[in-house]
Amino acid sequence: MIANDFYEAHTQGDFKIHDLGDLALESGETLRNAKLAYRTFGELNTDKSNAILVTTWFSGTGKVMEDVYVGADHALDPSKYFIIIADQLGSGVSTSPQNNPAPQTMGKFPKLTIGDDVAAQHKMLTEHLGIEKLALVVGGSMGGQQVYEWAVAHPEMVERAAPIAATARISLHQKVFVQALEEAITSDPNWNGGWYASGLDVRDGMDRMSKIVSALGWSREFYQEERWSTILGMSSLDDFINGFMKAYFEPMDPNVLLSEMHKWQRADVGRHADDDLPKALGRITAKMCIMPIDHDLFFPPNECEADCRYISGATVKVIQSKDGHMGLNGLEPDYMAQVDGALNVLLQS
Amino acid sequence: MIANDFYEAHTQGDFKIHDLGDLALESGETLRNAKLAYRTFGELNTDKSNAILVTTWFSGTGKVMEDVYVGADHALDPSKYFIIIADQLGSGVSTSPQNNPAPQTMGKFPKLTIGDDVAAQHKMLTEHLGIEKLALVVGGSMGGQQVYEWAVAHPEMVERAAPIAATARISLHQKVFVQALEEAITSDPNWNGGWYASGLDVRDGMDRMSKIVSALGWSREFYQEERWSTILGMSSLDDFINGFMKAYFEPMDPNVLLSEMHKWQRADVGRHADDDLPKALGRITAKMCIMPIDHDLFFPPNECEADCRYISGATVKVIQSKDGHMGLNGLEPDYMAQVDGALNVLLQS
Repeated sequence: MIANDFYEAHTQGDFKIHDLGDLALESGETLRNAKLAYRTFGELNTDKSNAILVTTWFSGTGKVMEDVYVGADHALDPSKYFIIIADQLGSGVSTSPQNNPAPQTMGKFPKLTIGDDVAAQHKMLTEHLGIEKLALVVGGSMGGQQVYEWAVAHPEMVERAAPIAATARISLHQKVFVQALEEAITSDPNWNGGWYASGLDVRDGMDRMSKIVSALGWSREFYQEERWSTILGMSSLDDFINGFMKAYFEPMDPNVLLSEMHKWQRADVGRHADDDLPKALGRITAKMCIMPIDHDLFFPPNECEADCRYISGATVKVIQSKDGHMGLNGLEPDYMAQVDGALNVLLQS
Repeated sequence: MIANDFYEAHTQGDFKIHDLGDLALESGETLRNAKLAYRTFGELNTDKSNAILVTTWFSGTGKVMEDVYVGADHALDPSKYFIIIADQLGSGVSTSPQNNPAPQTMGKFPKLTIGDDVAAQHKMLTEHLGIEKLALVVGGSMGGQQVYEWAVAHPEMVERAAPIAATARISLHQKVFVQALEEAITSDPNWNGGWYASGLDVRDGMDRMSKIVSALGWSREFYQEERWSTILGMSSLDDFINGFMKAYFEPMDPNVLLSEMHKWQRADVGRHADDDLPKALGRITAKMCIMPIDHDLFFPPNECEADCRYISGATVKVIQSKDGHMGLNGLEPDYMAQVDGALNVLLQS
């Protein structure tokens, strides 16, 4: 365990912790005394029909989902819905490499999967909050990978599902990319197999990772049109890379990001049907709205649309954002209007 | 200087060396006793109207251009044309970090630009080969950056120009990507500021670079359709990454790749007109055929097409290849047929 203020309440806002107890992982290991961080908004109605689960993405926590996606001005409106945002395991706020005691700490933190996240969320929702139906599961990127996992693993619970900028199975292209991100960190001698005194010791590797993320996370149009200036208010390409991208990742924990990358590159609901992805997707009974982002270089629209073919009644709504994958952060005013519009249609169906 | 067999004749085939003497560089430094490697095919006709210059790309040498692009079955047919393939400066075969004596060696090798390449080629062509007109300048990727430099800097000499998978000015997106490649090598402690006993000492950094190249060099469709198997005969994604991509770069010199990356990320003919790219491109008098590759993630077709607007009489021919940027290597049989077709039309114009 090491101290890292970034994952504490004064940065992350109010959240609750649910003790999951020992969680048997897909890998065969058991995560001892696992804790799931979550935050809720609104009230569960009497017939428990208005629960919405919101999942989190790589490097993101419940805070960004709260700030960007939830509110009276959004489809995820706490006056109508009981909204639960659950932080990924290993994401820094839930049980994670930097906050878990020995022996399952730092370089010895168990390897997790998207399936483990959904198992943990399922346990909390059913055993702790008494929820048996989800009006909607929604999340972006790795959050969208969790949405697919929910829809395939627990079709009886998921009435609607909205994976944003995500696919049901990681592409081999993205796998190579995520491995490049991993190697940027693990090649830093100060990473030292996951044993460091402070995440800041691994700054060089984290900085290199930030630059690789920059090359695919934002679209080419973002760079062409110098949107770091118009959208982000940065003064130059270097100012954007150093003052925004590196600064964004710097306070985070390197093992946390590696824990998430391990999951990210292995997400695949096909494993529920002996690697037969169409068969696995065929199990989905939720009404689905699949929302790729049109300039996304991680999860391009055509790959998101390919999943749709195997899901009866699923629709595709391509979100327009020249920010590419990073459009998820809603920095462009029009982004959330499009997402809210699609979610409202889905919620009313 | 260090020994590296990879850049010698038994790997690179027959090439000649032209002594350029001292070459004043754009940076203000002078490259002492600079040497340009080149190889020729066919004969210069009596009115010297059939000379074609072929340039080289990142990590590539004259050998791949000879093997893939030149021959009786290609537009670049030695029975019709006098074809000169010139290796980039700093590319391992021409004067380069690993083959140049002290003091301008290894970590102290001067920083070069695409403008320096073209200056060196111009000097050799005019002073050594007596060529005043080029029927065509053609090259791919960084070779295409040299084609643009030729067409803008020496319009009176260039009758036709064909940049394949290249733009006239590096995009900021690609700049970030190339910096990520650089950092993969320079972060290897064994790189040691450019001072190593063997390029193989820097294997870890080179391997990391190979993986980042893999993520953008090939298209997503290449991965989706597992073309490493059908096109390259590799057995799995790992076999492709290790046995093809890492194996491709392993014999190369790290400082050579860094020297080329320095040029790659700074290519910009706009500097000939006070950074006014349209004005610089307006100087081109050559007949041009701009050839993007349709799934290219380095130089995407829309960015290549954007250059075309400012060049009177230029046409665009998009080459179809699901290999993306790496399509340049002609591994797909249909690739060269498309390139040859477009070059034949251009040469007959």
